Amino acid sequence: MNKKLQNKINIGLIGFGTIGSGVVKLLMERRDLLLKRTGMDFHLSLVCDKDLSLKRDVNIPKNMLTKDVSKVINDPDIHIIVELVGGIHPAKEIIMKALSKGKHVVTANKLLLASEGEEIFQKAKDSNREIYFEASVAGGIPIIKAIREGMVGNRFSSIFGILNGTSNYILSSMSSQSTSFKAALKEAQSKGYAEKDPSLDIKGLDSSHKLAILLLLAFGKKVDISDIYVEGIEDISNFDIQYAKEFGYAIKSLAIAKRCGNELEARVHPTLLPLEHLLSSVSGVYNAIFIEADLVGKQLFYGQGAGKLPTASAVLSDIVDIGYKIACGKNSAKSVISKDIEIKNLKKMDDVVTRYYAHFSAIDKPGVLANIADLLGRHNISIASVVQKERREAHIVPIVMLTHEARELDMQAALSKINKLSAIKKKSVVIRLEK
Amino acid sequence: MNKKLQNKINIGLIGFGTIGSGVVKLLMERRDLLLKRTGMDFHLSLVCDKDLSLKRDVNIPKNMLTKDVSKVINDPDIHIIVELVGGIHPAKEIIMKALSKGKHVVTANKLLLASEGEEIFQKAKDSNREIYFEASVAGGIPIIKAIREGMVGNRFSSIFGILNGTSNYILSSMSSQSTSFKAALKEAQSKGYAEKDPSLDIKGLDSSHKLAILLLLAFGKKVDISDIYVEGIEDISNFDIQYAKEFGYAIKSLAIAKRCGNELEARVHPTLLPLEHLLSSVSGVYNAIFIEADLVGKQLFYGQGAGKLPTASAVLSDIVDIGYKIACGKNSAKSVISKDIEIKNLKKMDDVVTRYYAHFSAIDKPGVLANIADLLGRHNISIASVVQKERREAHIVPIVMLTHEARELDMQAALSKINKLSAIKKKSVVIRLEK
Repeated sequence: MNKKLQNKINIGLIGFGTIGSGVVKLLMERRDLLLKRTGMDFHLSLVCDKDLSLKRDVNIPKNMLTKDVSKVINDPDIHIIVELVGGIHPAKEIIMKALSKGKHVVTANKLLLASEGEEIFQKAKDSNREIYFEASVAGGIPIIKAIREGMVGNRFSSIFGILNGTSNYILSSMSSQSTSFKAALKEAQSKGYAEKDPSLDIKGLDSSHKLAILLLLAFGKKVDISDIYVEGIEDISNFDIQYAKEFGYAIKSLAIAKRCGNELEARVHPTLLPLEHLLSSVSGVYNAIFIEADLVGKQLFYGQGAGKLPTASAVLSDIVDIGYKIACGKNSAKSVISKDIEIKNLKKMDDVVTRYYAHFSAIDKPGVLANIADLLGRHNISIASVVQKERREAHIVPIVMLTHEARELDMQAALSKINKLSAIKKKSVVIRLEK
Repeated sequence: MNKKLQNKINIGLIGFGTIGSGVVKLLMERRDLLLKRTGMDFHLSLVCDKDLSLKRDVNIPKNMLTKDVSKVINDPDIHIIVELVGGIHPAKEIIMKALSKGKHVVTANKLLLASEGEEIFQKAKDSNREIYFEASVAGGIPIIKAIREGMVGNRFSSIFGILNGTSNYILSSMSSQSTSFKAALKEAQSKGYAEKDPSLDIKGLDSSHKLAILLLLAFGKKVDISDIYVEGIEDISNFDIQYAKEFGYAIKSLAIAKRCGNELEARVHPTLLPLEHLLSSVSGVYNAIFIEADLVGKQLFYGQGAGKLPTASAVLSDIVDIGYKIACGKNSAKSVISKDIEIKNLKKMDDVVTRYYAHFSAIDKPGVLANIADLLGRHNISIASVVQKERREAHIVPIVMLTHEARELDMQAALSKINKLSAIKKKSVVIRLEK
């Protein structure tokens, strides 16, 4: 035990839900462990929730419970407010008020930080208080810490993330067991990996919120989440997963940030990745983030991106980090956002250049492939490889190809013309490809 | 820029070699970047080396250079000493003296910390000064930070690391291009991945030093490096790599730490890992660390474990972390080692229980397999699968098998008897297997 550092750090927790009860449990059960490891006494003072009647798997004395948020925020003895309410309101007001009152803040609120992060971080800086948010992206993986601290001297060039465990679970099941999308989603729901309404996850929105936070951190760029191009996994079929595999690729839902000079690409969509890429081996509900930066080169961080204990572990590490600051005696605030890189704007999706996997469903008659190839060629898209097998259902034959690099605008224009060909009988499938 | 934090942090660097010149370059070229990102002005005051005549790829003013270590350590304006001398002496004396003089210390010295870490960390604590050492294990990967800070509330159960890029490069070449061990080593040497005398790397010693540091951090256990069981990769053949692959396994040189109740296993040796394990996909000079802990579950960290810039990036992040402490105004020291876990002792290698891959070279005559199986059975070792193909050289047939779990002592006893059989014509190969 480190006597010189010993300090009692008082914590107020707001939002006594799943993650909240995980944090409460850890703070109570691991108080001694943390004291031994850090020399600080982390003491949970007050726990606040609007509904105290719900059953939780942790027991705390009644006098520690309150429904009154202001009682927590105004408590002069509390050093750190842990906000686990979620959503934008009243979470934002809670955090802003807590900072005003001189509290340090820990939050796991990805939607709030993705939407209002810049304002909240500025408020923290102006108040000379810390705000930590490790749990907001990729749960138990210390990715925020790795970017902010571990790679503090680096300039980042790209981030590729599997940031949504639900989508990854579904795509993994579809790939390894040939489960249909519907069945895989149902399975995910029955295991508690997907919500009853799974839209946020499978439509890619949840990933886009996390990506917005990473953009702010790694590139100092505030992005409106509505400006991030987002495509879900609902239209991915077992057929395309199988064909991608034959070409040597896995299909993963990726959140992608790439710096191209002064512009930044930010997009979330299903992506073909070479089977030998480390991210292709990430299966089930796991998350992983692949980073390229100028000093460290390529790095990958892998782990559980959600769940009560991994997320509570991240909250705990934030609390301890702030504890060290408090023990230091002087209030201080680290910069969260650094404007050192001149990112002028987000690249328009139309201008993004990638390779494509394309799957056309055509009537089996002479000249169809020539027609398609001709339309692609006229839009500056050249074909890298093509497969047309004799696998017909009612005389419809699948034509599957990989293209060389092409501009999104060109691909969409070609696609809309191809879809109008009389020989094309289903909407064509196009999936972007990354190396 | 964060005005409230602004502080000038003066740095003295000792050891102006490859890593040293990388750090010097970064401190000079990224001073503005760091100022913008952290609000602190990191200023390189003095650089010390016993040989100043060598050519370096960075130019610094002559008045910043000295051969006199004590000039650096005694400079009252210097806050942080960066020790990049390497080896035990005089690096240890430099660090101890620096701490005595009230300096914080950053080091990349794995051998020193593996050997004398406990004493040095205690000295830092007693001096109320920080010692940071991110670059000592796995180069640019922020693994020390992840364990000390990111998973601060976790109890660790196991660590599996590919901690030596040279060995991994050789095994990768042998596996992907069927290069022989000798040719792969030569290639590694010509690319600068292996030293002229590669013993430290290929014999597993370098990995054992890094493992000793991780044991201290994750399990609070000081281990004599001579007590860590170490086996190199010199005896791994293309034949065994090929057979392992047929069984569904890759062969990797792993540093393994496993907690079994109050005992700790600590060993470095070639290991069969299922091909679908993430560590099996780590190829070339890359490092990766796979961790299991009770809250976060499984995590993997992957990146460049050596090299000038990745290592200098880690040193830089340590400097910045200490900078925040100094900016705080109050000197403080984090505990490095926590004695919260009751690890009584290191498990004896004889008592370790694992599965094995075994390869016997026998004369092709009736009853040989029965003889081997009988000897294994008498030592409580049962066979999980066996392959005996008609691939003969001079009537010698390879018998390759995977066993179920067995005790090391039993395996060695059986092995010594099998090697004495008249039908056995070469020393048998045994490689341990992990899930």
